[in-house]
Amino acid sequence: MTVGPDALTPDLVDRFTRWGRPSTPVTLSGPAQEFLEARVGMATVASNLPVTQICIPDSRLPGPALDALVAAVGVTQVLIDPISRLLHSRGMSYLDMLARRTADTNGIPDAVVKPATHDEVLAVLQVCTRYRICVVPFGGGTSVVAGVTRPAEAIGIAISMERLGALIALDALSGLVRVQPGISGPELERILGERGFTLGHLPQSWERATVGGYAATRSAGQASSGYGRIDDMAQSVTVATPIGTWSAGRVPASAAGPDLLHLALGSEGAFGIITEITLRVRRTPKASRYEGAMAPTFAAGISACRELAQLGLTGSVLRLSDESETAASLAMSGPTGLKRKLFDRYLAVRKVGQGALLILGWEEQSAALLDARRDAAWNVLKKFGVVSLGKGVGTAWRHSRYAGPYLRDTLLDGGYLVETFETAASWNLVPDLYEAARGAVHQALATGGHTPYVMAHVSHVYETGACIYFTVIDRGGPEAGPRWREAKTTISGALQPAGGTITHHHGIGRDHQPWLRAEIGGIGIGLLRAIKAELDPDQIMNPGVLLRPAGTGDPPAAIV
Amino acid sequence: MTVGPDALTPDLVDRFTRWGRPSTPVTLSGPAQEFLEARVGMATVASNLPVTQICIPDSRLPGPALDALVAAVGVTQVLIDPISRLLHSRGMSYLDMLARRTADTNGIPDAVVKPATHDEVLAVLQVCTRYRICVVPFGGGTSVVAGVTRPAEAIGIAISMERLGALIALDALSGLVRVQPGISGPELERILGERGFTLGHLPQSWERATVGGYAATRSAGQASSGYGRIDDMAQSVTVATPIGTWSAGRVPASAAGPDLLHLALGSEGAFGIITEITLRVRRTPKASRYEGAMAPTFAAGISACRELAQLGLTGSVLRLSDESETAASLAMSGPTGLKRKLFDRYLAVRKVGQGALLILGWEEQSAALLDARRDAAWNVLKKFGVVSLGKGVGTAWRHSRYAGPYLRDTLLDGGYLVETFETAASWNLVPDLYEAARGAVHQALATGGHTPYVMAHVSHVYETGACIYFTVIDRGGPEAGPRWREAKTTISGALQPAGGTITHHHGIGRDHQPWLRAEIGGIGIGLLRAIKAELDPDQIMNPGVLLRPAGTGDPPAAIV
Repeated sequence: MTVGPDALTPDLVDRFTRWGRPSTPVTLSGPAQEFLEARVGMATVASNLPVTQICIPDSRLPGPALDALVAAVGVTQVLIDPISRLLHSRGMSYLDMLARRTADTNGIPDAVVKPATHDEVLAVLQVCTRYRICVVPFGGGTSVVAGVTRPAEAIGIAISMERLGALIALDALSGLVRVQPGISGPELERILGERGFTLGHLPQSWERATVGGYAATRSAGQASSGYGRIDDMAQSVTVATPIGTWSAGRVPASAAGPDLLHLALGSEGAFGIITEITLRVRRTPKASRYEGAMAPTFAAGISACRELAQLGLTGSVLRLSDESETAASLAMSGPTGLKRKLFDRYLAVRKVGQGALLILGWEEQSAALLDARRDAAWNVLKKFGVVSLGKGVGTAWRHSRYAGPYLRDTLLDGGYLVETFETAASWNLVPDLYEAARGAVHQALATGGHTPYVMAHVSHVYETGACIYFTVIDRGGPEAGPRWREAKTTISGALQPAGGTITHHHGIGRDHQPWLRAEIGGIGIGLLRAIKAELDPDQIMNPGVLLRPAGTGDPPAAIV
Repeated sequence: MTVGPDALTPDLVDRFTRWGRPSTPVTLSGPAQEFLEARVGMATVASNLPVTQICIPDSRLPGPALDALVAAVGVTQVLIDPISRLLHSRGMSYLDMLARRTADTNGIPDAVVKPATHDEVLAVLQVCTRYRICVVPFGGGTSVVAGVTRPAEAIGIAISMERLGALIALDALSGLVRVQPGISGPELERILGERGFTLGHLPQSWERATVGGYAATRSAGQASSGYGRIDDMAQSVTVATPIGTWSAGRVPASAAGPDLLHLALGSEGAFGIITEITLRVRRTPKASRYEGAMAPTFAAGISACRELAQLGLTGSVLRLSDESETAASLAMSGPTGLKRKLFDRYLAVRKVGQGALLILGWEEQSAALLDARRDAAWNVLKKFGVVSLGKGVGTAWRHSRYAGPYLRDTLLDGGYLVETFETAASWNLVPDLYEAARGAVHQALATGGHTPYVMAHVSHVYETGACIYFTVIDRGGPEAGPRWREAKTTISGALQPAGGTITHHHGIGRDHQPWLRAEIGGIGIGLLRAIKAELDPDQIMNPGVLLRPAGTGDPPAAIV
């Protein structure tokens, strides 16, 4: 079915081709544009926008299956119209955005089903089991690893979490909140904030992602140094699986055998659908302070971050840009003209010219404790030559902390290739892993006259290691999709040999699936297969995510 | 084979009937004895000591299996003599001690095998698979839940971890240590201490337990409020399984699917044998302070501990005794005579007479930070009426922190029944769980003229809840074993309905196995079975631990 200009209102086109329209439009300033053009050149092809018509294949859902789904959730909650299906297909990776901007509707679901209770999810899964319909759970749809992309060959539905978005209970005494999975970050923080609490989980996808998605993908937010990963926050989950209701997790801790909660976290919809989750919450901090600083080099900054982490002196946010990201940040949103000259002179005098930008966010229950911790941290930072840039830089970062995806829209509009990837390793491997990853990007993309710009930051700092997060910008053009696809393979292949994980917080999805075996071994894959066979014997749950579909794949675990 | 007085030297009898002989003998002081007799009465039967002869069944290991084991590890490392087998049977529960003191040799292994490498462990497991010999991994042998007890009906060996006790590598930069599983707590702390590090894992079994045992049972130490549980410290493990080598865990964190490390932690030897473990270590604290305090009531103390945990103000150790344990502690090791009268008067004036003793242990990287955190904590404690008792009480606790098991030896010598159990729950349930557990002890044991003394403390404090640890003392007598067995069933049955876990850090073993299903559900049991079938298809690994042996057992996971 062809959807034409009448149905494709600008608002609708925005909804599926962009992260969103921010209240203040994100444009590239003159200096930012100059910076980019000087490094990667002028982009020429504006990512094939505007989309004016899309050909959407008809739903292939068999009549009896449709009837059974309607019986399970009600006639208004099974949607087979093309627009609903369009809006519940694909995630938010660069390739997803590119596909949308070229009206590629591959893998669009055959229906969108919107259950409102755990029992309705169970009922839907039973229908899908009976008719061998594959199921993609769809929360915020912000996966960047093809985690919500249906395999094109199978009949499948998206299960929307839209109607499963309630707060169930807040146990203020224990600091525990029970929620349904479809609640978004902002909505949860709003409800918690009214009651004096915060979850403190703030991934860059915060405005759109859902709590169920956080848990299913083991996400980590920008304040993970203080609040921990979602794995640290999640205390228990209820999962609707094709064989029934599975509850896992014990509050606050237990030694009653293996902790099966950690099978549900990171299961990415391949075992079942999380329908309820209990999270640790914290009291709203009474004192906070965000500040900027400059390390003489990225290497010195890494050492300083390591020291803070190992001494227990990180704040909520600790984020260190490499020299490339620092230069780009300053070009994008730093001082201009004479102010910039004065700023550069100051940095040079303090011996941090061309340095590495550090963002420190402090949140504590009292100003006295904040000061004590911050003083102790600054004693450490000074030893590594780190220089304070004051509160303004920190506050500015805080205000633009969710701007990245909007900026990507703007860069896509301008015809640029822009994508991110991330990894993590123990501290002793971080510097070499950083170089290996940068080398792989250049090897893959610095060809045919291209000069990709690679920048990175260290965030999600742990006592034993850290995450490195990379952003790549290159000229786009008609071959940008295939070029990135190939580059992604080269880059992914470089991370594990350098001691990095294939993903620190983006998840496996379909994009990272080929590297999972190297990550967890043949026996690990065998365990995941055994667990999936137990919970999802007919292999209907998010096929191709985590594991290759049965029969297409990995050899059995080796007998050593 | 009967082992008589010639072989049973006093030293050997000590080794299998006691926790140990401390450098300073633990005796009950006059006031302590009076306290005990006034409450539980005089014990009469001195636990059937002394043991002068033991009848040890011959090894039933088939000749070819013995040959194959010898081929795997060498002739000197396969022991079938009665004494070696005796010393590698059973754990350290009250019932284990009672069995030993009555020369009960049920479940003694048919051989003790001592591999020295991961590959030797793999080879031993292959032999055991071939001959269907069951395997009990044996580290420190300190299980209190029958976790190292072989089922009497099967031929089986104990695999001693004695020769797998080396430090493999210390990565000082990343704060990571790789060790073999057989290393003991004191040995590891000694090696780390020389290099300026500490693991900070100090369970009461620290002097005897091994690191592999910590990991296999999800143990938590006395300093868990500051250093975390072993689950927090363990970063990765290598496991020898009957199907080969399984490695799990990613440093420092990963979103590459479910975290299978959490299947190895808590696996209690039922899936394989941990042969290598990488642990987060911390720098030796530069400032430390242990102190005592008194809360007006246990309830007020619980509230104070909760507040500290939720404000992030716990030290390394936070331990709150209930009124009963406080009274017993004071009788056992508090001031006596006039000093006691003055002490009591002081407590009464400060309104904490008959209160609840609190131990606070602070360990930080600087005195300034210690003071800042401690000041903030005391601001909280004062709000709950907590009164300082100064450093002496804290230091005394610290010096006697491993005394419990020696004291148990003394009480057993005196003919008392003495055992502990533990649970955990979210803060809102802690008070009722405490009452429910106490009620169950009284229901089970306060019969036939018995007046059991029950005391408890809260330790292992989390933001969302806490562990409650109970000690029960009663008169012993010839029926003490069966009485406790029955009481244990009653008590265990009371914990989960009150919202508690069946075990916070002792593990499942064989003793808690009947309650695992209520803990993790039918689907959870099904998952454990599927995982065991994958890793241990012939069911040779520690049978009866975690899961009932196949075919004797739980119904399949219900279809909901």
